[in-house]
Amino acid sequence: MSYKRKDLLGTRDLSSDELMFFLDYAKEFKNLNNQSIKKADNLRGKTVINVFYENSTRTRTSFETAAKRLGADAINFTASQSSTKKGETLIDTIHNMEAMKTDIFVVRHNCSGSVRFIAQNSNACVVNAGDGLNEHPTQALLDLFTIREHKGSFKGLNVSIIGDIEHSRVARSDIWAMKTLGINVTLFGPPMMMPNRVDAFGCRVAKNMEEAVEGADVIIMLRVQLERQGSSTPFPSTREYSKFFGLTKERVKLANKNPLVFHPGPINRGVELNSDVADSECSMVLNQVENGVAVRMAVLSTLIKNRG
Amino acid sequence: MSYKRKDLLGTRDLSSDELMFFLDYAKEFKNLNNQSIKKADNLRGKTVINVFYENSTRTRTSFETAAKRLGADAINFTASQSSTKKGETLIDTIHNMEAMKTDIFVVRHNCSGSVRFIAQNSNACVVNAGDGLNEHPTQALLDLFTIREHKGSFKGLNVSIIGDIEHSRVARSDIWAMKTLGINVTLFGPPMMMPNRVDAFGCRVAKNMEEAVEGADVIIMLRVQLERQGSSTPFPSTREYSKFFGLTKERVKLANKNPLVFHPGPINRGVELNSDVADSECSMVLNQVENGVAVRMAVLSTLIKNRG
Amino acid sequence: MSYKRKDLLGTRDLSSDELMFFLDYAKEFKNLNNQSIKKADNLRGKTVINVFYENSTRTRTSFETAAKRLGADAINFTASQSSTKKGETLIDTIHNMEAMKTDIFVVRHNCSGSVRFIAQNSNACVVNAGDGLNEHPTQALLDLFTIREHKGSFKGLNVSIIGDIEHSRVARSDIWAMKTLGINVTLFGPPMMMPNRVDAFGCRVAKNMEEAVEGADVIIMLRVQLERQGSSTPFPSTREYSKFFGLTKERVKLANKNPLVFHPGPINRGVELNSDVADSECSMVLNQVENGVAVRMAVLSTLIKNRG
Repeated sequence: MSYKRKDLLGTRDLSSDELMFFLDYAKEFKNLNNQSIKKADNLRGKTVINVFYENSTRTRTSFETAAKRLGADAINFTASQSSTKKGETLIDTIHNMEAMKTDIFVVRHNCSGSVRFIAQNSNACVVNAGDGLNEHPTQALLDLFTIREHKGSFKGLNVSIIGDIEHSRVARSDIWAMKTLGINVTLFGPPMMMPNRVDAFGCRVAKNMEEAVEGADVIIMLRVQLERQGSSTPFPSTREYSKFFGLTKERVKLANKNPLVFHPGPINRGVELNSDVADSECSMVLNQVENGVAVRMAVLSTLIKNRG
Repeated sequence: MSYKRKDLLGTRDLSSDELMFFLDYAKEFKNLNNQSIKKADNLRGKTVINVFYENSTRTRTSFETAAKRLGADAINFTASQSSTKKGETLIDTIHNMEAMKTDIFVVRHNCSGSVRFIAQNSNACVVNAGDGLNEHPTQALLDLFTIREHKGSFKGLNVSIIGDIEHSRVARSDIWAMKTLGINVTLFGPPMMMPNRVDAFGCRVAKNMEEAVEGADVIIMLRVQLERQGSSTPFPSTREYSKFFGLTKERVKLANKNPLVFHPGPINRGVELNSDVADSECSMVLNQVENGVAVRMAVLSTLIKNRG
Repeated sequence: MSYKRKDLLGTRDLSSDELMFFLDYAKEFKNLNNQSIKKADNLRGKTVINVFYENSTRTRTSFETAAKRLGADAINFTASQSSTKKGETLIDTIHNMEAMKTDIFVVRHNCSGSVRFIAQNSNACVVNAGDGLNEHPTQALLDLFTIREHKGSFKGLNVSIIGDIEHSRVARSDIWAMKTLGINVTLFGPPMMMPNRVDAFGCRVAKNMEEAVEGADVIIMLRVQLERQGSSTPFPSTREYSKFFGLTKERVKLANKNPLVFHPGPINRGVELNSDVADSECSMVLNQVENGVAVRMAVLSTLIKNRG
């Protein structure tokens, strides 16, 4: 019923109970964050290091806020100042910081699997804050939290994930978690942004935007991530992208009643998401961000308890 | 009598009462900062994000120190790591951080008016820590605090502001506040660094250094800010600048008795300010920095109270 | 018996009693760091600024962790964002931050002697976190702490320091402290990395790796610091370095019983230190890092007490 591991590395191997545990626990912290004094002591006297080998404002700030509100000593480590540049191995870097009696590492890294490798080689707790094209589990948890808040339950819901599926760790973490919870997932995106073996996800694959949106309860638009693609990849222009793969108010009408529109941010307005959707009532973008802090507080608090 | 707004954006629209309120309140924090234990809880459980789109050591450190001494969770956001680079709009960035239940944004931005735009689009409190060529209100407050500390009152004082008036938000914030408080302001600088419509400030304009300094109770020397000028702008060499626009001990003698010399820092020694002045008793440079923390603590504490 | 100064600038002028004082005091903080709640209030209400003119993850993170666990308001200042770039003098920068009522500066700077210069010009406490080729005293303290933990006492111990002696502030701080404590120090390194006047250290100089290691109780391997050498310096290739100056398991066998191997990190595996040594039981690398936080907590706590 609870979560017993020392790390959170992905949603792929999480049970339905484990997922639901985090969602339930996060409610407590969402309430706290709505108080005038947003302060708890779950992590008092604990050291959390944010180890970011890729730049990220949103995720790092969200985790840093979560850690500080829980009373932790939070420290930022960014690769640009790092000893990695001096030729140190990743594991030596982690072991060094662990020797300082770090309790939790929050790690973002550009290589898939690197965060699991760190977790296997460290006694500290490790949270995957995004590793390459692999997973970004707290993003999936905050998406699920936001869905449940508005739809009540998951079973039988239709969720469409649209955009650059191939290069999206958000998509992967969402897909694994959603399938575990009995959600029907549809995928759609430009052909060159769809995984070669898309069937391996076991999701329905739509043929065009209309088919992708039709009947959806939740539409998750992914960001066009130019920085994660090789330069030689053929790529639709932003105008083409918007025309064939962008979400407009017109297209939202094809979805089920009271559809929810998600986006992990930052939004490219007018590319994957039109402003008439981003600023409409169905947009959950800011709800996602708000719930992200609560979910991360739940994750940090749980791991620290498990560590004892 | 008090200050009732959620933001501090500039001094231009502040009443005399509002200005005096901050100066009075800041005394309390100046006392605290002289204690052995410099710690209050006015901002306990509150989240302050320093949003700096321009680099700044001094101002960022001063605000961060102020926030931390008040017990806030203080987080730094710098544009170089930011999602702005990924194409996000300024307001989307702010809304995202606001969704994390941020209480106060301290914002520095290279565009005039951008901070007001943020304040109008956010429910969080916003402090302008310098926006383009527009305003830098806490600098004006710390200047006024320092003047009052040494001169007792403002009415009828003669203040000369000398240097790059055109590119100085410090000058603008000082001018507006000082005129409101009945101070006589004189302006002087190289012709190419004077605003085209300098008359609009309603200040006396001096014709040379001697005239600018003569009869002054307070001399505010501005920094030569090469970085804020277009490269094609004609510019006096540093040697010329020193000769025609720099403050020397000789020139200080033309001022009134016990004149005070201000500089917002960092000083270009030997350019706008000679070391024999910078290191003399009349130099208020370090008093300004000290009072800056106190003034910023007063501002942060006031805004958070107004927000409720 | 205790330490009475406001600064810690180097080990060269420390007495045996002063060195031992820090080692004894650090034990207290090592115990604290092994508690579940790692939190003290020795620096509550104090402001510590980490002033780093050279990049460093390890040392900055260690000091930041130490300061935060002691309850300080810890602020990072890095030269890349700094007003130094705007032409401000070093001492003006320090005076400015001191005016904010900073209690302790932790300073790393690329110029030898710069940190002493800062200390002489500041009323705040100053800790040298590495200045040019001069000293890195907390590194020596953590080395001594780790040696005592395993060897019990210092008198008559044989310590060999091997590698780039010329460019190593770690070597210098170790040498001065060890000689004061009656340790026999042997030096060895590539000819072009040995100081011209190596005799001035008053240490034995070995002729080859075998001679350097033979009879040693402790072997301190220095990092090959390419970044600290002029580009025209002749330099052995990493393969040559490993062959003639690297520490291998074979070579460790020449040392005394239960030898300890030290390295200030980050390690260049396969260059100065083979993995079969780095990962063996005799490697003290992570012990050094762990003890580093404790030693720095002792230093910060002591200085703040001395300041009153």
